[in-house]
Amino acid sequence: MAKRVGILMGSANDWDVMECARDALKQLGVETDVRVISAHRTPERLVRFLETAEAEDIGVVICGAGMSAHLAGVTAAHTLLPVLGVPIDSSPLNGLDALLSTVQMPGGIPVATFGIGRSGAKNAGLFAAAILGASDPEVRKRLVKFREDQASKVPDRPF
Amino acid sequence: MAKRVGILMGSANDWDVMECARDALKQLGVETDVRVISAHRTPERLVRFLETAEAEDIGVVICGAGMSAHLAGVTAAHTLLPVLGVPIDSSPLNGLDALLSTVQMPGGIPVATFGIGRSGAKNAGLFAAAILGASDPEVRKRLVKFREDQASKVPDRPF
Amino acid sequence: MAKRVGILMGSANDWDVMECARDALKQLGVETDVRVISAHRTPERLVRFLETAEAEDIGVVICGAGMSAHLAGVTAAHTLLPVLGVPIDSSPLNGLDALLSTVQMPGGIPVATFGIGRSGAKNAGLFAAAILGASDPEVRKRLVKFREDQASKVPDRPF
Amino acid sequence: MAKRVGILMGSANDWDVMECARDALKQLGVETDVRVISAHRTPERLVRFLETAEAEDIGVVICGAGMSAHLAGVTAAHTLLPVLGVPIDSSPLNGLDALLSTVQMPGGIPVATFGIGRSGAKNAGLFAAAILGASDPEVRKRLVKFREDQASKVPDRPF
Amino acid sequence: MAKRVGILMGSANDWDVMECARDALKQLGVETDVRVISAHRTPERLVRFLETAEAEDIGVVICGAGMSAHLAGVTAAHTLLPVLGVPIDSSPLNGLDALLSTVQMPGGIPVATFGIGRSGAKNAGLFAAAILGASDPEVRKRLVKFREDQASKVPDRPF
Amino acid sequence: MAKRVGILMGSANDWDVMECARDALKQLGVETDVRVISAHRTPERLVRFLETAEAEDIGVVICGAGMSAHLAGVTAAHTLLPVLGVPIDSSPLNGLDALLSTVQMPGGIPVATFGIGRSGAKNAGLFAAAILGASDPEVRKRLVKFREDQASKVPDRPF
Amino acid sequence: MAKRVGILMGSANDWDVMECARDALKQLGVETDVRVISAHRTPERLVRFLETAEAEDIGVVICGAGMSAHLAGVTAAHTLLPVLGVPIDSSPLNGLDALLSTVQMPGGIPVATFGIGRSGAKNAGLFAAAILGASDPEVRKRLVKFREDQASKVPDRPF
Amino acid sequence: MAKRVGILMGSANDWDVMECARDALKQLGVETDVRVISAHRTPERLVRFLETAEAEDIGVVICGAGMSAHLAGVTAAHTLLPVLGVPIDSSPLNGLDALLSTVQMPGGIPVATFGIGRSGAKNAGLFAAAILGASDPEVRKRLVKFREDQASKVPDRPF
Repeated sequence: MAKRVGILMGSANDWDVMECARDALKQLGVETDVRVISAHRTPERLVRFLETAEAEDIGVVICGAGMSAHLAGVTAAHTLLPVLGVPIDSSPLNGLDALLSTVQMPGGIPVATFGIGRSGAKNAGLFAAAILGASDPEVRKRLVKFREDQASKVPDRPF
Repeated sequence: MAKRVGILMGSANDWDVMECARDALKQLGVETDVRVISAHRTPERLVRFLETAEAEDIGVVICGAGMSAHLAGVTAAHTLLPVLGVPIDSSPLNGLDALLSTVQMPGGIPVATFGIGRSGAKNAGLFAAAILGASDPEVRKRLVKFREDQASKVPDRPF
Repeated sequence: MAKRVGILMGSANDWDVMECARDALKQLGVETDVRVISAHRTPERLVRFLETAEAEDIGVVICGAGMSAHLAGVTAAHTLLPVLGVPIDSSPLNGLDALLSTVQMPGGIPVATFGIGRSGAKNAGLFAAAILGASDPEVRKRLVKFREDQASKVPDRPF
Repeated sequence: MAKRVGILMGSANDWDVMECARDALKQLGVETDVRVISAHRTPERLVRFLETAEAEDIGVVICGAGMSAHLAGVTAAHTLLPVLGVPIDSSPLNGLDALLSTVQMPGGIPVATFGIGRSGAKNAGLFAAAILGASDPEVRKRLVKFREDQASKVPDRPF
Repeated sequence: MAKRVGILMGSANDWDVMECARDALKQLGVETDVRVISAHRTPERLVRFLETAEAEDIGVVICGAGMSAHLAGVTAAHTLLPVLGVPIDSSPLNGLDALLSTVQMPGGIPVATFGIGRSGAKNAGLFAAAILGASDPEVRKRLVKFREDQASKVPDRPF
Repeated sequence: MAKRVGILMGSANDWDVMECARDALKQLGVETDVRVISAHRTPERLVRFLETAEAEDIGVVICGAGMSAHLAGVTAAHTLLPVLGVPIDSSPLNGLDALLSTVQMPGGIPVATFGIGRSGAKNAGLFAAAILGASDPEVRKRLVKFREDQASKVPDRPF
Repeated sequence: MAKRVGILMGSANDWDVMECARDALKQLGVETDVRVISAHRTPERLVRFLETAEAEDIGVVICGAGMSAHLAGVTAAHTLLPVLGVPIDSSPLNGLDALLSTVQMPGGIPVATFGIGRSGAKNAGLFAAAILGASDPEVRKRLVKFREDQASKVPDRPF
Repeated sequence: MAKRVGILMGSANDWDVMECARDALKQLGVETDVRVISAHRTPERLVRFLETAEAEDIGVVICGAGMSAHLAGVTAAHTLLPVLGVPIDSSPLNGLDALLSTVQMPGGIPVATFGIGRSGAKNAGLFAAAILGASDPEVRKRLVKFREDQASKVPDRPF
């Protein structure tokens, strides 16, 4: 069965950013399992989700969080699935706090980090598809087409 | 029985910083339980430690970690004990990554954060003693004396 | 008699942030004493407040200030009560100035620092309650319930 | 045939960092193809490498670069293979320049970014193995063992 | 024939900033060739443009881009024409990401960088004219007048 | 004759900030000479102003500028009068550029720097008055009263 | 009697920086009163010093401190004398913490801030002399000569 | 006669960085005129140099300075020659102060800024040659060769 992508976020407010990951994956024909799971307020929910993730065909997990963004790191500590982190700009520090909290993981537990906010979430979706595309020729084919379309949509002039 | 302070750190290398917390507490007559527990590499060890912490007379937990410093936040997610975080300067970013990862906790799960490195660790130790001193007159008395000694040691001239 | 929490702020404008500390404490049944005291413009008022604080059952002091936020540090210099600092974002530097002014205390005079702005103020309130809860079982019980309610309020899906 | 990992770096001086990626992959039994390719000084060499990469069983590309680190982004622009970026601290700005140049990719061309320097390079190697492990049970098995060994090597006490 | 200035930008959205470069050059009687070319999404378009640029009388190239701004660096890698970079503020990090991505070029491939946003774009236009003015007395004469007018427009009092 | 304070700013747009310096001085009965002088666009105007400043009873010069704020430094290079610098937040970098450009003067040419924006301008005005007050008892008397009034205006409670 | 300059520092370790202020003043024939006074550890000592400062002919106070540098701000809160602040680089954050803690004073209590470290201390000394020079022609004369000597010592070539 | 490049620096200590600009130009057969000129300590020397610069065949001016790096900006205010700025890392802030002071010029007076330190100085030299190469075929030819040599010196493997 085709692999799906788990999309986790620390708060329902993060959906405005994380829907860009879902949209990119939808466009590439990849199913998603979207959850609100807080590393801090509902840690058990995270452990439970990860215990069954592989059995439920989750192949990649994308985690979006703001501030002291621990969600991706804690997820990576509990699974061997590739974990993608999206820092979210939800504090006065413009997402620099979330970026550093996500990307500066100590050696041994990797989190693949993307840019702050909506473009980062979109890229995390595209990257998840690239991982799945390695063993799913349909996804791969759609990615090729996505890239071509994307290039052709860049206008020649700005006016 | 007198309360003790748990001192956790993400790596044995952090002891060079965290011993300042232990030293401050020792000087104030407070016992400590010092552990290396990585939020990422040994998450179960953290949960196990916290499950029995209160029963083993731990009254405050001090967590030191560098980089994407998640240890204090994950600890705070699993206990109601006061959690003190010490950011450690162990990456090229001079501890700014650890500071923001520790202090910018989302609302609902508090971590009391101290300065980066050895002075922060010392202050975390003093603060833990201040918390315990509220119900332990001996500790309180030693804190009063510590402050007086500290003031008297400031020389009048730098030369 | 039950301990109360002093909530100090450098300017009446800071109330918009600091009321989150008051609200959290109110929800947990902890009384507060709210004051506007500027470390710079009314330093004597601060000293007077602290001289009688313990006698008036203040068990913890929360200080919120922006810019060169000295209020928490100056407070900590004059009392042995636990001092919690809340950096406030009230300058073009997004609160980074207040964060560093509050958290980077030199060794010897600890200030427990929380995140910038409203979530930091809320967490300072919760942390003050955790300190008082160590010797007040009623507060402790309400904290346990607060945590449970908080977890149960996290929705499963963002949509 | 088993997939290999391309490890590119902007300068031979970056090897001191990037060998951590090679070492992690070697330990997990994954072959690597290590190259010095500068996005700026030898751009054609990069295009040539990428044109044949998939045919030569490269499954993931890791790019390490410092300063205005463009290598990972330019690589990602020319391939659909997953591209992992490692910012290298080789300027007075402590790697913040390389981190932002690598992670803040515009939407549409994803680069999975890891921490600055040697721990980031190690994590990029581990992550590449996690991607390959999805379809290579041997790699996956070694990753499981790596994690277990890693946890067991964390000492209980720092002294 | 009089030299022209190429003005490239990573996205049509950048025109709001880059038109300041065009306007400055127009005012100084220098023709421009304005293009949307993404270093990441349309890299071949960039190579094609640069292959014929000198033949088509382009004497200077101005590149505006935001986030991981690679456009100027990649352009400089493919041409010996002077390349001017304008960092654009199009992410939560206020253009700091684009500034560092543009200015911190490794030794060997120079990019002349200007300030973030509209004043930087204007200055890039003026600087391009100064380069062309070295061999075009008309442009030079207009630059002299521009400077004089600019000085005379500074009012004596702000009210 | 009573000394006056020169208030210079790089652009008429800076008046919104610099009027706070003028207002503070007016309130203290100190006359001001307000000018728009750009260190970059009208450097001769600056030199001319400073040549006659002392003869025209200017005792202190306050300079406000944004971005690469050179006005205060260039002023200090041409006069022995005390020069006060006010960094203005007029770029995407929130005034951090202006702050560092103003405060980080090399040894030998001092600029006394105040905070970013309107509170910095107000404080520069107050500080100029403090300098003049050393030899002008009337100004001094008004400063004493200003401080007392300021303290008395701090309310006891924020609500 | 000639006015003197008070030089205060938070710790005897700061003397390595603050002696540059003393040296500059000595060279200009201005007497200094050098003290170690911690805003946090010996706040009463600071109040006592300031109560008699004017009577003891102190005309300017220079305060050097690192980390959460509160010394200058607290001094300014207790005196109407001009207060000059020197941020000291004594934490992993390179003095950025001390700079922001010193310069970002709220409106109403001014601190004149100088650059981080030894050049800032030297400039604070020169600036203090400029203030005193307004009413002390001897100091003024020496300042004129200092500037001339300084200019003449700049070599024409670096080799 | 062939154009020369002026290389100015604020202090003789900056030569360690600025010699990279001289070396690059020497290698390309471009003559240089190297001077120590401080924008702050010897402003008249700067004006005098610029008054005769064009008459003495200076075609481009490169300015290196650290801290509040005003040299390039002040130079640009006094000449229409292309001015290239090299920020120098000579303060605790790692050159961020010099970078922002140099690059964030207000609209109207352009400074072309290069990276911090030695690689920036080298690139400024190369860029100056590119400007002169537009009308000097010999310089242009050497630049082409420099680029080819540079590419050929990049090794294939780092070991």
